Amino acid sequence: MNASPKPIPRIVIVGAGFGGLACARALGNAKAAVTVVDRRNYHLFVPLLYQVATAALSPADIARPIRSMLSRYRNIEVVLGNVTALDMGARIVRLADGPDLPFDRLVFAAGSNYNYFGHDDWAAAAPGPRTIEDARTIRARLLLAFEHAEIATDAAEQARLLTTVIVGGGPTGVEMAGSVVELARHALLRDFRRIDPAKARVILVEGGPRLLSTFPESLSAYARTALEKLGVTVITGASVEAIAPHAVTIGGEVVPAGCIIWGAGVRASPAAEFLGVPVDRAGRVTVGADLAVPGLDGVYVIGDSAAAPGADGKPLPALAQVANQEGWHLGRALRRNLENGAALPPFRYRERGNTAIVGRNAAVFDFGRFRLKGRIGWMLWALVHIYLLTGFENRALVAVHWLWMYLTYQRGARLITGGEAERDTHAPPAR
Amino acid sequence: MNASPKPIPRIVIVGAGFGGLACARALGNAKAAVTVVDRRNYHLFVPLLYQVATAALSPADIARPIRSMLSRYRNIEVVLGNVTALDMGARIVRLADGPDLPFDRLVFAAGSNYNYFGHDDWAAAAPGPRTIEDARTIRARLLLAFEHAEIATDAAEQARLLTTVIVGGGPTGVEMAGSVVELARHALLRDFRRIDPAKARVILVEGGPRLLSTFPESLSAYARTALEKLGVTVITGASVEAIAPHAVTIGGEVVPAGCIIWGAGVRASPAAEFLGVPVDRAGRVTVGADLAVPGLDGVYVIGDSAAAPGADGKPLPALAQVANQEGWHLGRALRRNLENGAALPPFRYRERGNTAIVGRNAAVFDFGRFRLKGRIGWMLWALVHIYLLTGFENRALVAVHWLWMYLTYQRGARLITGGEAERDTHAPPAR
Repeated sequence: MNASPKPIPRIVIVGAGFGGLACARALGNAKAAVTVVDRRNYHLFVPLLYQVATAALSPADIARPIRSMLSRYRNIEVVLGNVTALDMGARIVRLADGPDLPFDRLVFAAGSNYNYFGHDDWAAAAPGPRTIEDARTIRARLLLAFEHAEIATDAAEQARLLTTVIVGGGPTGVEMAGSVVELARHALLRDFRRIDPAKARVILVEGGPRLLSTFPESLSAYARTALEKLGVTVITGASVEAIAPHAVTIGGEVVPAGCIIWGAGVRASPAAEFLGVPVDRAGRVTVGADLAVPGLDGVYVIGDSAAAPGADGKPLPALAQVANQEGWHLGRALRRNLENGAALPPFRYRERGNTAIVGRNAAVFDFGRFRLKGRIGWMLWALVHIYLLTGFENRALVAVHWLWMYLTYQRGARLITGGEAERDTHAPPAR
Repeated sequence: MNASPKPIPRIVIVGAGFGGLACARALGNAKAAVTVVDRRNYHLFVPLLYQVATAALSPADIARPIRSMLSRYRNIEVVLGNVTALDMGARIVRLADGPDLPFDRLVFAAGSNYNYFGHDDWAAAAPGPRTIEDARTIRARLLLAFEHAEIATDAAEQARLLTTVIVGGGPTGVEMAGSVVELARHALLRDFRRIDPAKARVILVEGGPRLLSTFPESLSAYARTALEKLGVTVITGASVEAIAPHAVTIGGEVVPAGCIIWGAGVRASPAAEFLGVPVDRAGRVTVGADLAVPGLDGVYVIGDSAAAPGADGKPLPALAQVANQEGWHLGRALRRNLENGAALPPFRYRERGNTAIVGRNAAVFDFGRFRLKGRIGWMLWALVHIYLLTGFENRALVAVHWLWMYLTYQRGARLITGGEAERDTHAPPAR
């Protein structure tokens, strides 16, 4: 008589961002029943979302259905659902709108949201480019501000509408500032009759002493000069004290604004608290070098939800490439562990270089030993991002958009749509 | 002493669809101050909107900003606004959210909406592909129906979710039915584990005796056969008696459905009533051969808002090519009239051929004297539509999407986004 077959272990992956997707792929066709659950039906290339917010790309150009990215692996199933609880006793992931998902191993990769540092009431007035809906909201607000400035009769109101304030001098803020000023001064330049879009003000505010604080100082200085040459007003060392729908208070001064955009740091998804373990100030779960949660059996956290130890002992930053490498590492480690009981090896992050784009022909690259900036940096930035996008179609679509934008200065997705277009936050007072 | 210069006549064009945009372009750089007002900031290529609704294209691929389409004409200004009244005494167009627009001549081209023939309460349950928001709603409902079927535990509920009912057997209904069945049977085919998307039912209901009633009978018969070969259930001569959120009553039988789509005839925008003249049963204003409204001085109606006399005396149909030709004709006629007082010549519609696509390698063309169908018709359909789209970028993006879809059967815009994704009409009952 044969022994009854060993049951196939069930792995549930919560979240299909860079970390969760990489982990699932690494487990493709492994001897495990893998379930990937996400509240969206698509994987989103978030680093390019600022280009959706500034009318350069369409959402679908940087998104792909999770199902079709994983369909070739017959051991993986995908569930669209909102996680409401992680029952660590019964070992079940519970959904608001779907079946219970029992697991033997749990990979938690729920990502992060913008961190308003205790001012969550600022979120409505100052959205950041984190979801497709956020990006559409920002796009509608930017474009509506120009539309309303065109018909405004009051000079102060017109000046307010033509002012965009961007909070946070990290890569998102820098990229957003460059993209907004190019939208105004090039794409919109000839389209209005009463206002001059070239006079639009773009103000980038950073609390610290310099932009791009994680980059070498020379690249920070270059980014500042390049932005200022494009026409951006860069303010460093000044804190944002208040944000209201139509104004930002910066270092005691109230700056009326037509559009306010947030890009100042992230906080792990609150779902991390479902694990019932302590989280750090940024909401992250501290994991061991093997990415396992100490004290929980067979539970792993990766990506922006995790504080994983770096080579210097400090937690690794919330970056797409960290999440991606953690996902691949953990997926491969789990696979070997399931096959032959091998212990999970420690994760070692390999820094592949950091980059930020300032504008046309201006990007910075930091490879540690050497650095790049200017036109060469910009060309490399474009090539790297087309390579990082997965799928022929997304690559071809983004390439068409960028080539056309480069040649004509036009933007391909200047649509005012979505809820924001109806609510119309810029509506002039009733007459 | 010189005579004081003649004041420049002011022409206001309401609506920047096919008719209004053509009229504006024909008046480009004429000796008239032209104002184009629309409640959207973009011109939309509505005939391809069903492809946005079925996840093949992105909204921005078939839309262009009205401002940039007209920016080269310095005599034209564009206003984003909602028309609330046409004051024919003071000769002013009034907006809910913008300045008063005084006019010497008024071109009314406000287009049409779907006609629910007295059942406006059906609109929420059965949207049609008429606006970007509608198309996103349909896309979210179609994709959510499959997502919910995948996790449904009740067989009848699963069968309901996998049933799509399309009402109306004109070009929109036929194109939608072909596109939905191809989405299910090709693009989604390998992406689910518990359901078989190939078993999805697509039901096309037409009240009249045949599909595509404006085409020759041979092409109607071909379209029916081609749809049935694709797997569509075609029901003709049966009327839709009731539509509820999850069911359609067809000829006395209640058909539970996961997604219901409307495509049965249009009705002129209610704004036509602002003119204060009688409208016909479809809400259209009857105009003379010169497209002027009898009894109103210097007021013209074109496109779907107008019942303009055809060669046979019957009103011309609500078609993009009719609106486009009327716009060009009227714009040129007004231009000559302003230059030298020439009377407005009568408009003569030139039928350029009618087409409808059934699916991959299957389209019908009716050129009057000769007809086309099958693969040649399909290739011509694709070429003609890429030609009709304006702008290099839109053409290139649509070509990339179609080429990729043709080669791989995949759809490039399978995103569940927008209000519908949040409201989630398919949510299973609370447990």
